[in-house]
Amino acid sequence: MTDIPPDHPRYESLLAREKVAAGVKMGFTSIQGLIAQGRGESFDYLLGERSTESALYAERAAVAALLLAENPVISVNGNVAALAPEKVVALADLTGAKIEVNLFHRTETRMHLIIEQLKACGASEVLGKNPDASLDLSHDRRLVESRGIYSADVVLVPLEDGDRCEKLVEMEKIVITIDLNPLSRTSRMATISIVDNLTRALGNMAKFAGEMRKERKDELVNLITSYDNKKVLSEAISEIQEHLKNLAAEVEY
Amino acid sequence: MTDIPPDHPRYESLLAREKVAAGVKMGFTSIQGLIAQGRGESFDYLLGERSTESALYAERAAVAALLLAENPVISVNGNVAALAPEKVVALADLTGAKIEVNLFHRTETRMHLIIEQLKACGASEVLGKNPDASLDLSHDRRLVESRGIYSADVVLVPLEDGDRCEKLVEMEKIVITIDLNPLSRTSRMATISIVDNLTRALGNMAKFAGEMRKERKDELVNLITSYDNKKVLSEAISEIQEHLKNLAAEVEY
Repeated sequence: MTDIPPDHPRYESLLAREKVAAGVKMGFTSIQGLIAQGRGESFDYLLGERSTESALYAERAAVAALLLAENPVISVNGNVAALAPEKVVALADLTGAKIEVNLFHRTETRMHLIIEQLKACGASEVLGKNPDASLDLSHDRRLVESRGIYSADVVLVPLEDGDRCEKLVEMEKIVITIDLNPLSRTSRMATISIVDNLTRALGNMAKFAGEMRKERKDELVNLITSYDNKKVLSEAISEIQEHLKNLAAEVEY
Repeated sequence: MTDIPPDHPRYESLLAREKVAAGVKMGFTSIQGLIAQGRGESFDYLLGERSTESALYAERAAVAALLLAENPVISVNGNVAALAPEKVVALADLTGAKIEVNLFHRTETRMHLIIEQLKACGASEVLGKNPDASLDLSHDRRLVESRGIYSADVVLVPLEDGDRCEKLVEMEKIVITIDLNPLSRTSRMATISIVDNLTRALGNMAKFAGEMRKERKDELVNLITSYDNKKVLSEAISEIQEHLKNLAAEVEY
């Protein structure tokens, strides 16, 4: 990897870029995944590259949903495996969630490499290699395992495509997404839409899970029943507008 | 390339994505170029994927500058070669500009492939392979030809990095950039900042060049002397804010 000085003002963003590029070289991130990373960079820049109050609110609700679930599953794709595999494993451990690899550009090699990467980060079991169930989709993201995504009551699908998100919601699952574009179909479809950078979001969620797993069940239930996703999305838009105004003022436009 | 139906609402954007991915496979676009394409996609989406009034105003001024120049040069990198090589050649022909390849991630192979690509699109001469001059930069974008970018009075640098843009401005050249982020260092540094999608911008500019090359010289001079770049950048921000408001209203946030 390129040496990026840790005091660079955009260190985290540049590091993430390097990680995704390394993921492509190692064969588990797709070329389309790089373009998606770039799209995310722009929205993160417009949000000020920080977890906003409304993102933290959604992340707490998401952790509550995972902790209360009977069969929670975290879905992993090539970008997630490149960017934050160790955070996925930590969050799965803390919430009791299963991990399942699910790819749009699916090949046996990519499946294998991603599963190995997650295991190297400490995952004891990773589903996805032997799909025995199918979602109603025309592309390879339909391929799922019956004891994983197919039967899950709560699914965390970071960096999702809109199609699959919609299907999972139709199947009456609680769908948690992490997507920096608050206007994307994914964000609009999800039950809990986290508008935050993947690495920050998973880090925050693991921290919250460590704290919240000790809380009383009714407190977690309360977090979910009072949760307002529309408000989260609307506040994300306001945050972008506000930040854009500040940036424009700084450069004196 | 994947088959994208031409009636797809985001056909142009998806086609551009395929072209850049194909550029990587053919060896002339860098992996970093893909992430840059993604960043551009987000800003284009926020601008409504259209050439705004202020972009068209900047594009006309840019064409006037190219037509009035003594030694205009169009700088080409891997993304430009992947996305719109034939438009670069058309604009160069109509304005009498030279074409020079200039790469951040420079290798002899990439230089060769991009030059051949431009020649296949009709370019008679493409500079860049034998740099005999240097800009005051630490990376490979410093390598230029003395009769090309080095001595140019007007340089069009689409999809630029901020560093080189700054150096060229310091050398008292008229620097025209095409960058969808109106807040980037490139956009802030340039003499004429075109905040538009590369393919649309080059297409518009070739059309304007065909019309404007017949105009009287003093009319072209007038276009440049009255040109206000600060206004262009500030209007681009307003366009994004306005479009964001409309998008949020559409999805009822």
